[in-house]
Amino acid sequence: MDEASFLARLRALPLHPGARDLRDDAATLGRFVVTSDTLVEGVHFLPSDPPGDIAWKLVATNLSDLAAKGARVAAITLNYPLSDDDWDDAFLRGLDAVTRAHAAPLLGGDTVTLPRGAPRILTVTAFGDDAAAPPRSGARAGDALWVTGTIGDAGAGLAAARDGALTDDAGTAYLLARYRRPTPRLAEGRALAPHVHAMMDVSDGLLIDAARMAAASGLAVTVAPDTVPRSAAAHARGISALDAATAGDDYELLFAAPAGWSPPVAATRVGAFASGAGLSLTLGGAPVALPAHLGYQHGA
Amino acid sequence: MDEASFLARLRALPLHPGARDLRDDAATLGRFVVTSDTLVEGVHFLPSDPPGDIAWKLVATNLSDLAAKGARVAAITLNYPLSDDDWDDAFLRGLDAVTRAHAAPLLGGDTVTLPRGAPRILTVTAFGDDAAAPPRSGARAGDALWVTGTIGDAGAGLAAARDGALTDDAGTAYLLARYRRPTPRLAEGRALAPHVHAMMDVSDGLLIDAARMAAASGLAVTVAPDTVPRSAAAHARGISALDAATAGDDYELLFAAPAGWSPPVAATRVGAFASGAGLSLTLGGAPVALPAHLGYQHGA
Repeated sequence: MDEASFLARLRALPLHPGARDLRDDAATLGRFVVTSDTLVEGVHFLPSDPPGDIAWKLVATNLSDLAAKGARVAAITLNYPLSDDDWDDAFLRGLDAVTRAHAAPLLGGDTVTLPRGAPRILTVTAFGDDAAAPPRSGARAGDALWVTGTIGDAGAGLAAARDGALTDDAGTAYLLARYRRPTPRLAEGRALAPHVHAMMDVSDGLLIDAARMAAASGLAVTVAPDTVPRSAAAHARGISALDAATAGDDYELLFAAPAGWSPPVAATRVGAFASGAGLSLTLGGAPVALPAHLGYQHGA
Repeated sequence: MDEASFLARLRALPLHPGARDLRDDAATLGRFVVTSDTLVEGVHFLPSDPPGDIAWKLVATNLSDLAAKGARVAAITLNYPLSDDDWDDAFLRGLDAVTRAHAAPLLGGDTVTLPRGAPRILTVTAFGDDAAAPPRSGARAGDALWVTGTIGDAGAGLAAARDGALTDDAGTAYLLARYRRPTPRLAEGRALAPHVHAMMDVSDGLLIDAARMAAASGLAVTVAPDTVPRSAAAHARGISALDAATAGDDYELLFAAPAGWSPPVAATRVGAFASGAGLSLTLGGAPVALPAHLGYQHGA
């Protein structure tokens, strides 16, 4: 069954009012926001990836969903398949680093043993509180579309890792770190959440995620790719604006806000919402064709 | 790494105060209690098991942990590996049944796609509120040890399933249902929790779980196996008291309460706590040897 069919069936079950009809990145339960991500070996990461980086990314991607709700991190739980000592030790060191870096205390979880040779499947559930919790569906016609930080760094880092690029060059090391150990924009999310109409994190690519925000909000969105903010290191590797806007794993915050408003954090205006439907691109004000792929999709 | 070593390492990470040092079946987060169980195909269930029963058991075992905390069910999340249509459909029907039977609304979760041939790994996290939340470590010297319902039914049901026993005999059907679709003792847990010193659910066998409660409480416990309550159906299949007390999957509530107190729910007194350490058995007041296996263990 594909994800859309499965979610449609889940919506026929008794749903919690905080489930937001299973259409958002996080749910609300009392004063908490709750989000959960599962990573699968061979799908979301490779058996050869450093276990410490997998731990970091598993936690950081969940915290990024909390950031998009403007939440303070309250706790995480971990469901973990026990493995060999070396892998587990390296994972634990990455887990220690990411939980300390972002003050994410461990609440509980479960450990299991897998049949021999089974791919690892890891789940983290993250809990935030004190959240303004803007939905992804709240954009209004006339809103500007903004994004924090720079886009495309993780995509360039992934390409560098695939090319086996040397990491003793500072620019490449920066891009690899952006790919392997993303920083959830928790402080930015807290500053933005009370003011924005809609917010989500950019996980699969700026264009596809902008299209999703527009669809959830029942609007059209126009993005000007030449305005997409890129780092000096991404520029130096020749990453085009369209490369950047269609790469995944940025974990920056994408948000819709009234046209005249200026965000209190480092962010770039990259587009605008209007009545209608769909995503379109403009270059110097003139429409341009959409690329064949808007972003990254894991299958489900 | 084995589970004990992994948990010891996790305890060196920043822990949430509600984590109870990762030594209990549920954690507390604000007004919620949180518990999570992961089931692995080939470890906790067989590929040939009915998917609807797997859904039921996955949810029911989590709700049983909430019952042991005296909690009201608030919500569940599901992390699910998408599969073929038939399996997913049967799973969804079991999920529908168990969530409606126990008023457990779905809050969120995640879906993933697995590499071909990978064993399924499913996680449910359950949230309860309004809980008195007695710990498993609170038994006091002199307390009586009680258990709700009857013990050994699920073990007898599992044996019947392995034997390929006919299910058109009412007793066998009852035992199979107790194995495949356990009932979390939510009402009993809520009635008991404000009054008992310690409580946990019996998941791996009465003897091993009684020993764990005693160890967590820093006490010795004595169990009189001939007092272990068995159903007529278990009796009819010749299940001995020791068979019953060392079988798993009961999902009854085991609790410690002051010697003179009578529980407000159907329960049987099966033992007593004293200062000291370890588990011992008595028959007619005289000590008897422990069986070779006290209960069921999944490896980790």
